[in-house]
Amino acid sequence: VITKSLTFLCDIGHTSANCFRNGESFKIDIDSFNPESFGDRVIYINVNQKFKNFPDHWIDLQPYVESDTEYKTLGIDRQVAIFGERNRVIVDFGSAVTIDVISDRHIGGYIMLGRDEVVRGFQRKTPHLKFKRKTILDLGEVPMVSEDALYYGFYHQTATFIESISKQHDLPITITGGYADEFLPLLKEAEIRKNLIFEKMELILQSTEIEL
Amino acid sequence: VITKSLTFLCDIGHTSANCFRNGESFKIDIDSFNPESFGDRVIYINVNQKFKNFPDHWIDLQPYVESDTEYKTLGIDRQVAIFGERNRVIVDFGSAVTIDVISDRHIGGYIMLGRDEVVRGFQRKTPHLKFKRKTILDLGEVPMVSEDALYYGFYHQTATFIESISKQHDLPITITGGYADEFLPLLKEAEIRKNLIFEKMELILQSTEIEL
Repeated sequence: VITKSLTFLCDIGHTSANCFRNGESFKIDIDSFNPESFGDRVIYINVNQKFKNFPDHWIDLQPYVESDTEYKTLGIDRQVAIFGERNRVIVDFGSAVTIDVISDRHIGGYIMLGRDEVVRGFQRKTPHLKFKRKTILDLGEVPMVSEDALYYGFYHQTATFIESISKQHDLPITITGGYADEFLPLLKEAEIRKNLIFEKMELILQSTEIEL
Repeated sequence: VITKSLTFLCDIGHTSANCFRNGESFKIDIDSFNPESFGDRVIYINVNQKFKNFPDHWIDLQPYVESDTEYKTLGIDRQVAIFGERNRVIVDFGSAVTIDVISDRHIGGYIMLGRDEVVRGFQRKTPHLKFKRKTILDLGEVPMVSEDALYYGFYHQTATFIESISKQHDLPITITGGYADEFLPLLKEAEIRKNLIFEKMELILQSTEIEL
């Protein structure tokens, strides 16, 4: 349930800040991101160490997040994403792909390079190879041309890993993040929740004195 | 079978040139690689478009490689690696990780970023996160600390993908390349052939008039 309010919710990452108000999300490139430019109140979480001092109308949600994990140094964005979850694998497709495994409690997770970073890596190393789908291939169909080999090298490998974790722990999958929808054809059983992080921020707010 | 000879065998890639003589392999960083500096004859394959003109004592093996695949633009290094193979998955761990699937013939493959490129990607994006193993984890054990989440995000994801391809096509695995040995604990059934590319270059030479 997303409440209507003048307050922004922001999730500040390494590549972009993702913000949300009144059912609408928007993305600001981290180089253009300036907290001063927000006229209204903002409730935020932040993993980006470049940003340390925020204006008074920015409220850090971090102190209110009670995290049920022994995972050391779990980023606040992942703590929020898994908040209140049980028996689920949660995958966030951002500048990193993060996987979190929650049974009765959070039992760990993985961090991989996200799509755009993989593309950049190839551009730097082999600029003649393009990261571009030529053929529509399902999981298990093997690419027969370099572009597909690169493209599905990312998509098939990532989807296979997620599915394997889900099967091994017998847990359903929730996907979120910027390009989660691109994984729906490969992870057919997965639930997609584009605004998971903001829904969880609202949920956490309910247990605080802070009003949205 | 590796023959003793004064001739060098070289496999020129994007990050390094890997050369071989008399049972010994050695690696030259691509920025220091200079064909003129080799005193003796060299038989080579090359995927690096920066190198186009070679001295007369450098013999390109490429025209002699008969490739049994419909995969377009398959790199000459992968054509050599799969030469003469049947019913096998061949994985090369270099600056890219390449996977080739060969049943009766080559049926396709994948290209992923290699270990060092993944590390570089994280260094650029999240320099506070270190790519460093803290705990020894088998496939299926989930990391509980950020360093392991990053480290095994690469190793477990890669190994899981390779194993899944091997199982799906019911084919055994051969691994080669610079850090293939790091995958042996995760891919317990895999065969390791560190000098696969040079063995195949020798094999191809046997069907030519070129003497080693």
